Amino acid sequence: MAVLGGALARTHRLDAFGFVTLAILSGMGGGMIRDALLGQGPVAALTDGAYLLTALIAAAVIYLVRIEGRWWDRTWPVIDALALGCWAVVGTQKALAAGLGWLPALFLGTLTAVGGGAVRDVILNKVPSILGGNTLYASCAILASGVVIAFGVLDLPTLGSLVGLVVGATVCLVARA
Amino acid sequence: MAVLGGALARTHRLDAFGFVTLAILSGMGGGMIRDALLGQGPVAALTDGAYLLTALIAAAVIYLVRIEGRWWDRTWPVIDALALGCWAVVGTQKALAAGLGWLPALFLGTLTAVGGGAVRDVILNKVPSILGGNTLYASCAILASGVVIAFGVLDLPTLGSLVGLVVGATVCLVARA
Amino acid sequence: MAVLGGALARTHRLDAFGFVTLAILSGMGGGMIRDALLGQGPVAALTDGAYLLTALIAAAVIYLVRIEGRWWDRTWPVIDALALGCWAVVGTQKALAAGLGWLPALFLGTLTAVGGGAVRDVILNKVPSILGGNTLYASCAILASGVVIAFGVLDLPTLGSLVGLVVGATVCLVARA
Repeated sequence: MAVLGGALARTHRLDAFGFVTLAILSGMGGGMIRDALLGQGPVAALTDGAYLLTALIAAAVIYLVRIEGRWWDRTWPVIDALALGCWAVVGTQKALAAGLGWLPALFLGTLTAVGGGAVRDVILNKVPSILGGNTLYASCAILASGVVIAFGVLDLPTLGSLVGLVVGATVCLVARA
Repeated sequence: MAVLGGALARTHRLDAFGFVTLAILSGMGGGMIRDALLGQGPVAALTDGAYLLTALIAAAVIYLVRIEGRWWDRTWPVIDALALGCWAVVGTQKALAAGLGWLPALFLGTLTAVGGGAVRDVILNKVPSILGGNTLYASCAILASGVVIAFGVLDLPTLGSLVGLVVGATVCLVARA
Repeated sequence: MAVLGGALARTHRLDAFGFVTLAILSGMGGGMIRDALLGQGPVAALTDGAYLLTALIAAAVIYLVRIEGRWWDRTWPVIDALALGCWAVVGTQKALAAGLGWLPALFLGTLTAVGGGAVRDVILNKVPSILGGNTLYASCAILASGVVIAFGVLDLPTLGSLVGLVVGATVCLVARA
């Protein structure tokens, strides 16, 4: 996610500061909004310094290197799909752990996965692509989040996270191919 | 509010996911921002599942049915005005209950009533209409919020909510007619 | 910051409500987002009524008076630079006080200083100027925030605030001249 943010920043002729900001927002914007809505202390992206550091490194790599080539074209969709599934699973689990119902959990799981990209689009003056035209990300996030909730009802949270991640990422990859 | 969000989504050629998202943001965006700023646990739109469900149903109705006709043209402004007054009253009460002063309460009451529509406008790449051109909503929200605060000073909170709702909704309806 | 927000509102033909809203968002948007992300009770801009009142007065002055002339052209950059440094220092101190690491503190310090202006730009349908083209504000905010963090490590927080403010504001003034 952070990588895509950096790539978009290049297209919009942003400077290094813009690169880093967009990378942070793309990668962690969804989780930040989720945590602000949950209102349980500082957002995870701030308490765990590894988040910001990862986004910074991703932005630096994209800024300095123009990533392309066959290897990248094959690897990138896999990373992207895994990140989407991962964010959806984490967001849903966190909402359930906070004692929220299945609908708010579905909402927060999807928000965590696609919210960062939407914030990035709005800042770059575009109507978020997930709202119209590109339904792939949202569908996969909802799917992964739904799996986590279903397994949560069956009291199998760990298995649910695994299945949710695999199902969400696989559908995302297959639908794109 | 959620209904208007859905209607705008149609104009912008959004898909079903976009419809639902805009309906949720239009209807509850103001309250979500209010609760995130108040920082007192999860936002109400998430802890009370009825909020999200209502917005979902509203979005579904608007998506499937093209609502129009004389009956609707007469009923809709009333619903709209009541929703505006209701949100302004609830937001102000919540701010006062959190121990805030009258100016922050006025700010949060107005934000609750018009914030969702403003967020929707920004996402659809428009300068929020409440900031210029369309002052009706903001004026009525400030009025309703002010009534609640005045009655709060007189230690008559319940009466204040009622009067605030009636005054805000009525002015909104009359000014529009 | 609030003053600049009001000035921009005039250019965009906003009404009085739009003026006030933009002034509040420009001046306090960064701090509001910071406090929402920190999740430690109501945001400072609401609990301390003086913040909103100051922004209201600033908006009223800009709305009624068309400020210009040689005196203003000399004074304004100084006020602007001091406000920037002040916000960066306050944001960083608050993040450190919440027990966050240096990278999140740098992020929140910069966000406090430049976030309000970015929110204003997005609402007015512009890609935030701090992301590309105008790096001055962001650089000075990062500098001021970094000074505070460095002095914090040396266990000299008060001196750090002072030096951070002076360094950030001075660089901002000199770079502009």
